[in-house]
Amino acid sequence: MNNTQVILKSRPKGMVTLENFEVRTGEAPTPGEGQLLVKNLFLSVDPYMRGRMNAARTYAANFEVGEVVPGRTVGRVIASRNPGFAEGDTVLTGLGWENYSLSAERGLRRLPDDAEHLSAYLGVLGMPGFTGYYGLLEIGRPRPGETVYVSGAAGAVGSVVGQIAKLAGCRVVGSAGSDEKVAHLLELGFDGAFNYRAAGSLRKAVRSACPDGIDIYFDNVGGETLEAALATMNTYGRIVACGAISRYNDAELRPGPNNMFLVIARRLKIQGFIISDHEAHRSAFEADMTRWLAEGKVRYRETVTEGVENAPKAFLQLFTGNKIGKQIVRVG
Amino acid sequence: MNNTQVILKSRPKGMVTLENFEVRTGEAPTPGEGQLLVKNLFLSVDPYMRGRMNAARTYAANFEVGEVVPGRTVGRVIASRNPGFAEGDTVLTGLGWENYSLSAERGLRRLPDDAEHLSAYLGVLGMPGFTGYYGLLEIGRPRPGETVYVSGAAGAVGSVVGQIAKLAGCRVVGSAGSDEKVAHLLELGFDGAFNYRAAGSLRKAVRSACPDGIDIYFDNVGGETLEAALATMNTYGRIVACGAISRYNDAELRPGPNNMFLVIARRLKIQGFIISDHEAHRSAFEADMTRWLAEGKVRYRETVTEGVENAPKAFLQLFTGNKIGKQIVRVG
Repeated sequence: MNNTQVILKSRPKGMVTLENFEVRTGEAPTPGEGQLLVKNLFLSVDPYMRGRMNAARTYAANFEVGEVVPGRTVGRVIASRNPGFAEGDTVLTGLGWENYSLSAERGLRRLPDDAEHLSAYLGVLGMPGFTGYYGLLEIGRPRPGETVYVSGAAGAVGSVVGQIAKLAGCRVVGSAGSDEKVAHLLELGFDGAFNYRAAGSLRKAVRSACPDGIDIYFDNVGGETLEAALATMNTYGRIVACGAISRYNDAELRPGPNNMFLVIARRLKIQGFIISDHEAHRSAFEADMTRWLAEGKVRYRETVTEGVENAPKAFLQLFTGNKIGKQIVRVG
Repeated sequence: MNNTQVILKSRPKGMVTLENFEVRTGEAPTPGEGQLLVKNLFLSVDPYMRGRMNAARTYAANFEVGEVVPGRTVGRVIASRNPGFAEGDTVLTGLGWENYSLSAERGLRRLPDDAEHLSAYLGVLGMPGFTGYYGLLEIGRPRPGETVYVSGAAGAVGSVVGQIAKLAGCRVVGSAGSDEKVAHLLELGFDGAFNYRAAGSLRKAVRSACPDGIDIYFDNVGGETLEAALATMNTYGRIVACGAISRYNDAELRPGPNNMFLVIARRLKIQGFIISDHEAHRSAFEADMTRWLAEGKVRYRETVTEGVENAPKAFLQLFTGNKIGKQIVRVG
């Protein structure tokens, strides 16, 4: 069995490129005592991975140069020497960008036998969905009638945030980087949406899309978008600091918002979080999200790239904006 | 009776100067039906007043050009045509920078007959003390053993924050703008203190004064100090956004911290507040602070400037740093 693997060849300086990766092909490994062999079906590429490609420490251990890029996958157990898992089990893993992975029991989670949409466990039912759910509900704490603005709204996290905010009775505005994405947001039920690339003044675009001001800003983007949102925040507003995709590929630190004084003047709260700290909330999330999906109250879209060797290309699309919803790689 | 009044002559452009004020002398007014005449004993000058001298709206109505500068005072009722107050009552007011003020009942508060240190109601027992108390305890939520860093630490708010943080079992570090202030902080029981003007690299100074990182940063200063504190924050740290005195005299907006990504990576909370929103906590504050003062657990210092005509000079000292503790004006 041939095993195609994507290796982190070098740490990106500034914008990540295809040259930072190398594709290798070798033999699939054989499980030793206590191990199992997983055939990966779907790989996840996520923006947070960019930070882990740097040498500087962020909130988690960094990826190693010369090693397979680690990441979430959905896979099937095809050989097991571990009593905890049997051949044929479908599992959610943190293994990485390759066809076949050896694994111990740790870090694997068995998915339901009747799971219909396996890739959803990498998106709406997985880490990104949980991130949007927790961040909006526990940090943002939406109240009916409030205005929620979410940037990166057509992404895996943003699209969940907007739809849950609608369920919570809020007016929801999203921004994204193409007219096609904007159309998708309106189709998902967003009350307002704009293409920030065509907006001219970002401040004016935010203000005009949120005429009653913003009560909750769910920030996936950082940078100028955060500054523009700050300018439109209402008194007692909450900023859920979830991501800063506009800055992940910066080679140098750039200045922050020039209107931080508004944090005091308008009594704002800015709070950052990392979803892995909040496992205690996961079962509530899964119960709610499973129900919402079944009832058609939350919908999701995926952009699927074929072949593990194309994982770097899929990863780059997170930053160039050529994808809608959750970016997935289907392993050949 | 001669009444000396300080008028806001013009709105400051950038740094406030003595030329922005005018001193006038006229006749003390006579109370009409329902009114009373207050002889001011002490005036308060506070950093927040700088923002209210601008034309742009902050969180409160702005001061009017051509009018007496409004501000907190402690005064004595010398004539009353209002049944709510009697001649001889000592009152806390929001009247302003003049010898004699006419007032209705609204906005006045009678002080205890046995109040020993009247000026303390403008400082440690008043708005600044309450600000430090509420911000540290309710937003910062200190736990024993944590490190609290407070900037502007020798000021009316900062010195209270540091002493309460010590009572809460924290390690407390303060920064201020002179060696004399640093000595004062150590005398108040701060565990560490440094003169930011002599520090060279602010980041290194903060890091070296807080070797275990910062759990709570109580920000009175903003700007580069906020950026330096962010760099040293521990995971789950809280930033109490109370003031930004380094920016109040800016004519133009300046960039914010270049390390806002740490808000996510370290799961930080930055929260702004205005103490006037939290009247419900005032009685608890007054009970605690009165006890702490009686027990010698909180001490305070005042810098007293003589004469209402010198209120502008006293106000300017807030920004030049030539004062320790609460800046007070004693009315002649």
